Amino acid sequence: MEYRKIKDEDIDRDVEVEDVEKSFLLTGAAVPLASSVGDSHRTKAQWKRKSVVTCALTILTSSQAILIVWSKRAGKYEYSVTTANFLVETLKCAISLLALARIWRTEGVTEDNRLTTTLDEVIVYPIPAALYLVKNLLQYYIFAYVDAPGYQILKNFNIISTGVLYRIILKRRLSEIQWAAFVLLTAGCTTAQLNSNSDHVLQTPVQGWVMAIVMALLSGFAGVYTEAIIKKRPSRNINVQNFWLYVFGMGFNAVAILVQDFDAVMNKGFFHGYSFITFLMIFNHALSGIAVSMVMKYADNIVKVYSTSVAMLLTAVVSVFLFGFHLSLAFFLGTIVVSVAIYLHSAGKMQR
Amino acid sequence: MEYRKIKDEDIDRDVEVEDVEKSFLLTGAAVPLASSVGDSHRTKAQWKRKSVVTCALTILTSSQAILIVWSKRAGKYEYSVTTANFLVETLKCAISLLALARIWRTEGVTEDNRLTTTLDEVIVYPIPAALYLVKNLLQYYIFAYVDAPGYQILKNFNIISTGVLYRIILKRRLSEIQWAAFVLLTAGCTTAQLNSNSDHVLQTPVQGWVMAIVMALLSGFAGVYTEAIIKKRPSRNINVQNFWLYVFGMGFNAVAILVQDFDAVMNKGFFHGYSFITFLMIFNHALSGIAVSMVMKYADNIVKVYSTSVAMLLTAVVSVFLFGFHLSLAFFLGTIVVSVAIYLHSAGKMQR
Repeated sequence: MEYRKIKDEDIDRDVEVEDVEKSFLLTGAAVPLASSVGDSHRTKAQWKRKSVVTCALTILTSSQAILIVWSKRAGKYEYSVTTANFLVETLKCAISLLALARIWRTEGVTEDNRLTTTLDEVIVYPIPAALYLVKNLLQYYIFAYVDAPGYQILKNFNIISTGVLYRIILKRRLSEIQWAAFVLLTAGCTTAQLNSNSDHVLQTPVQGWVMAIVMALLSGFAGVYTEAIIKKRPSRNINVQNFWLYVFGMGFNAVAILVQDFDAVMNKGFFHGYSFITFLMIFNHALSGIAVSMVMKYADNIVKVYSTSVAMLLTAVVSVFLFGFHLSLAFFLGTIVVSVAIYLHSAGKMQR
Repeated sequence: MEYRKIKDEDIDRDVEVEDVEKSFLLTGAAVPLASSVGDSHRTKAQWKRKSVVTCALTILTSSQAILIVWSKRAGKYEYSVTTANFLVETLKCAISLLALARIWRTEGVTEDNRLTTTLDEVIVYPIPAALYLVKNLLQYYIFAYVDAPGYQILKNFNIISTGVLYRIILKRRLSEIQWAAFVLLTAGCTTAQLNSNSDHVLQTPVQGWVMAIVMALLSGFAGVYTEAIIKKRPSRNINVQNFWLYVFGMGFNAVAILVQDFDAVMNKGFFHGYSFITFLMIFNHALSGIAVSMVMKYADNIVKVYSTSVAMLLTAVVSVFLFGFHLSLAFFLGTIVVSVAIYLHSAGKMQR
């Protein structure tokens, strides 16, 4: 449990490690406790790595949203989404393999970076991909009850569900102040997205609310489960873990192509409707997917949620310069609330 | 400085008392330190009194706003505002005198509850009334730059200015968490008031922003100065202090009648255009004025700001039932942020 020992500065560290070991997800490989817990040089390096992957995730998520706006401005895109998703997973696999090849050349093949795996290790890897698939299928049905801007607002339930599942499944504690910060993050993100039509969402029928909450739980569970898988073997090389995650992602997306877009791909070709911007989006999406994995390895889901929230705000600000968007008063107020939430998340950590 | 000793649970209490004594406002009468600081019975009684006056202020402020909505629904009211303000001050004076008469009958006339005063005590009492007069005069000019709903939004600067002046003038400390809570209170109140026209306020010219900030500072300064006056003599009976505050209020409002509404009063009479609801509003306004003084005496300006913010939210909720108003998504989000702010204000106090 070395990764926990160093990342957390809990007073009740032992209790928590015990908690984690009781957890059904994190049992298994026991990692010897590091003797260098107090090693400030190492802690600093880890803090730096955490910051770098978090910033990368923020920038990549933000640029992903900007590419979407750009592609919408450039006209409707006619490619099949399933083929694009398949290419994203394939690209992530390829990048992980390239990174591994470089590591093998310098460090040689070790127990931690070998690609071969055991059934015990690999059996949980398809689960996040399967959860995302179910969530994406549900997404088609929710639009029977909610319009697209309303769905954007309801998606903020993800923030709360991630926090709750993070607490329940990973048994990690947030202080009361950090919980307050999480509620504020949700409220602030929603406020920043308010527009003159937002009140429609209050007329959402019960089915819509239930589906939004179920989707938020699925999405939160997939995120938290991925963190559990990746952190279960802290010494295992992240690129190997990514490779196996993405292989199953490729598999599920191949099935999705067959089910949804088989005719289109057969008649018009795999790359029908692709443009330069489509490839840019695929490339960006692949990199941000890898950044998510890195954040799960070196930070956690809470950091991921803050990072993607900041990315949302960043996208809006950049869109002012790129596309001449106007920022609303609600956006400013939401940004203030999100900023205070970030401050409180870190202040709450110090005080617990 | 007995009142401070009991109210604050600062660790660095002595430093702060020294701070207060250095303050130009609070120098003067030295009050012997109470020997019963640890007296939990007394602390509980004080906490109860603080809660009662705070709840009274919240309910009275809220009902004041509801009376305004009601009177607007009932048709335009044609009475002159200056005469109504004069009657409010007169009624407050009368209520203070009645309360004093009761106290004199039971306790007799003492040094603390006698009505006679010294120049040294009374000389600062006209200042808050004068500040409010200047603020009310400015109010006429700001509407050249901002519309009424925009002014409602800009008025939330009051919250921040009260916090800043409370820190500077009364030298009272807020913890970092409490400052964060104060920023959230401002953002939350503004969010709750958002409507489809709110973005107009972003087009306010510089003069409008400057005047809004000056008005917020005047209003905040008047509030904080009143607290300083009332708390300068903690053992002095609040009804005597109120009497002198309101006497000067009467005086300033009499001048306002002469300047603004002399012709109308002479031609149509003092009570021209008054209705039952006008008298109700005057009565309610007088009671809420007294509640403000009580909060200044037994709590502080920060509590007053939280109390009036909650009153604003309460008014909106009650209006749903009374007038069939609809609550917006922005209102819900603002209410969440204000609720978290209230929690953080109290959590921040415990942790400092």
